[in-house]
Amino acid sequence: MAIIVQKYGGTSVGSVERIKAVAERVARARAGGAQLVVVVSAMAGETNRLFALAEQLSSRPDPRETDVLVATGEQVSAALLAIRLQELAVPTVSFLAHQLKLVTDSRHGGAQIKAVDSTRLRAALESGRVPVVAGYQGIDSDGNITTLGRGASDLTAVALAATLKADICEIYTDVDGVYTADPNICPHARRLSHISYDEMLEMAGLGAKVLQLRSVELARRYNVPLVVRSSFVEGEGTRVSEEEAAMEDVLVSGVTLDQNQSKITLAGVQDRPGLAAKIFGPIAAAGIVVDMIIQNAGAEGRTDITFTVPRADLRRALELINVVAGEIGATGVMHQEQVAKVSIVGVGMRTHAGVAARMFAVLASESINIEMIATSEIKVSVVVNAKYGELAMRALHDAFLGEGGGARPGA
Amino acid sequence: MAIIVQKYGGTSVGSVERIKAVAERVARARAGGAQLVVVVSAMAGETNRLFALAEQLSSRPDPRETDVLVATGEQVSAALLAIRLQELAVPTVSFLAHQLKLVTDSRHGGAQIKAVDSTRLRAALESGRVPVVAGYQGIDSDGNITTLGRGASDLTAVALAATLKADICEIYTDVDGVYTADPNICPHARRLSHISYDEMLEMAGLGAKVLQLRSVELARRYNVPLVVRSSFVEGEGTRVSEEEAAMEDVLVSGVTLDQNQSKITLAGVQDRPGLAAKIFGPIAAAGIVVDMIIQNAGAEGRTDITFTVPRADLRRALELINVVAGEIGATGVMHQEQVAKVSIVGVGMRTHAGVAARMFAVLASESINIEMIATSEIKVSVVVNAKYGELAMRALHDAFLGEGGGARPGA
Repeated sequence: MAIIVQKYGGTSVGSVERIKAVAERVARARAGGAQLVVVVSAMAGETNRLFALAEQLSSRPDPRETDVLVATGEQVSAALLAIRLQELAVPTVSFLAHQLKLVTDSRHGGAQIKAVDSTRLRAALESGRVPVVAGYQGIDSDGNITTLGRGASDLTAVALAATLKADICEIYTDVDGVYTADPNICPHARRLSHISYDEMLEMAGLGAKVLQLRSVELARRYNVPLVVRSSFVEGEGTRVSEEEAAMEDVLVSGVTLDQNQSKITLAGVQDRPGLAAKIFGPIAAAGIVVDMIIQNAGAEGRTDITFTVPRADLRRALELINVVAGEIGATGVMHQEQVAKVSIVGVGMRTHAGVAARMFAVLASESINIEMIATSEIKVSVVVNAKYGELAMRALHDAFLGEGGGARPGA
Repeated sequence: MAIIVQKYGGTSVGSVERIKAVAERVARARAGGAQLVVVVSAMAGETNRLFALAEQLSSRPDPRETDVLVATGEQVSAALLAIRLQELAVPTVSFLAHQLKLVTDSRHGGAQIKAVDSTRLRAALESGRVPVVAGYQGIDSDGNITTLGRGASDLTAVALAATLKADICEIYTDVDGVYTADPNICPHARRLSHISYDEMLEMAGLGAKVLQLRSVELARRYNVPLVVRSSFVEGEGTRVSEEEAAMEDVLVSGVTLDQNQSKITLAGVQDRPGLAAKIFGPIAAAGIVVDMIIQNAGAEGRTDITFTVPRADLRRALELINVVAGEIGATGVMHQEQVAKVSIVGVGMRTHAGVAARMFAVLASESINIEMIATSEIKVSVVVNAKYGELAMRALHDAFLGEGGGARPGA
């Protein structure tokens, strides 16, 4: 019998009426003959409400206790959905992390899953019940409650799907799939019917918010096929799976825009071995994620190093870099608070040359100056002045994915 | 080192400001040198909010899932108080039922505590931390979440105090102690400084809502001294402990009024062995608690049987009794929807005769007709017409406890 894991996000269970709709959907899917496991997020707004309570009581709420607090959001959703399913005569049982033995490390607020014991889930399935699992939460080896990070109910769903060797993991959300670009910015953006894990990883990492990055990584590692679909309207959604030969026919499957980056330049640095470690060591130690790094060799053995950090971390990064600049005798530290990173993503780049060159030509034709460039096997990213971000995205989407530009989108 | 268990009720943790005040109180108590364990209820209104959500999703919400749902209320309070204590530099750690191994039977919504493992609590105390325990909840032997019944955070506190052999269990609420009568009805009602378990049990059973009945029973069984006190104002509160010799000097320690009873009379019943079982068997099987029962032998071997039931159960009780009446050939079934039960309670009755007679005289002097009488070792209860309930209570309070009437009240 096929096993399906369904995950419903916060807006999908955001009210009593929405929970009723989800229960109907689960009942229909079960009537179709599959063994179902359901994972739920907290009701929309609930996690923020709980965090806000904690912040009223402490300037730095204790991480262990914050996890005890916010884990209740998913517990409430799981219980309410189970209550509704019972009302529809669907046999069900809710599970919390401690009941499933979903064990993580002890990093509160961003714990990593170490093991899931599928015994109770399998027993429930075999007795004909639908397990409803509270997402986002785990327990560490001492039985302390942990949480997996914002958006990590996706991760719970994928982990359970991997453990149960499920046939598919369906992620229900408030959009009807993964788009070639943000439709709010690109009017021609279209839903993709199919995308590879690698492309989805690049898109998620680049700011497309449909799927949580770590859940896509986990799905790829265990080869769990994903479907992203709306719980509000019927539709096929977007399937995320291993790369298939046909995918390479399309050069670019998506264009992304990240407007939450800042740029820092450390100028006139004496170039010598160990320099990069000296500069980026303190920043890494502070938990700041550096994205793009460029080093330009200059005259007289001196060089400029430019890199980007999340805008929220700019102040802290500058404080650290100013200290380092003094130590290594740099001639100056400059920064730009808001820059835009625009990227094109597609597995077709692996086999087709000239994609980057075409991208640069498109931007040049719009007179947009490129400040930084970074490439991977299936991605090209450029940093441009923040005010040109949306224009760059639209121009690239129209060039690569506009009318007649791409073959894969849309069902 | 002395061990103190403190329990804070829903109004005491009903807002961010109240939680801050509780944290200050805990910090002060700890600075006094005692080892503290804190038990919390859900924030006022939260349990009702959660029950209301369940009722919007099902006409009869599944009991197991309802417990999963409502147990979150205490989890939130425990986490928030722990977060605040850490902010005040008080080392602390919150505990849920599954972490403490607070094991109950599987009667969801009204589970009985079977065992508490004190290992983690003791370890926390010995490391200098204040354990903050979510009240009201347990787990059964399969790890399912259970709840102990409304008001049962008191029970959690007493159970922990018994397990830890605590020196005292302090119950913080929104009133400053146990009163000789309801101050809303008796203007002369006064706070008692001291009351015995037996008296408190009778008072709690008779409708005084300060302490949950089962928690007083448990405290008596394990000889856990209780103090009932306000978390809003400073004060000594009321101490509940084993009976002391001096208590007997006072005839009556409290007067209670229960206006939620109904009276049913089964008339003209043929008196024969097994009759009572035939009448009350079906009522007990339906879970209806019969309080007072009177049987009057009449002429020709026929008898009238009168009894009281909670008003909420009157309709169901009448349906059952009408069936029984037909089977046993009773001549009629009468009922009175609202009657008032007025009681006087005091351990002094054990050693002083004539208390009941004096009670009847007081009621006669107010021309209040007595419809039923029941007595125990330390209590006399009468049922009177509902409209005379408050008058009866005031008259009895003034006679036994009014100015100069009682020696024990008030500190």
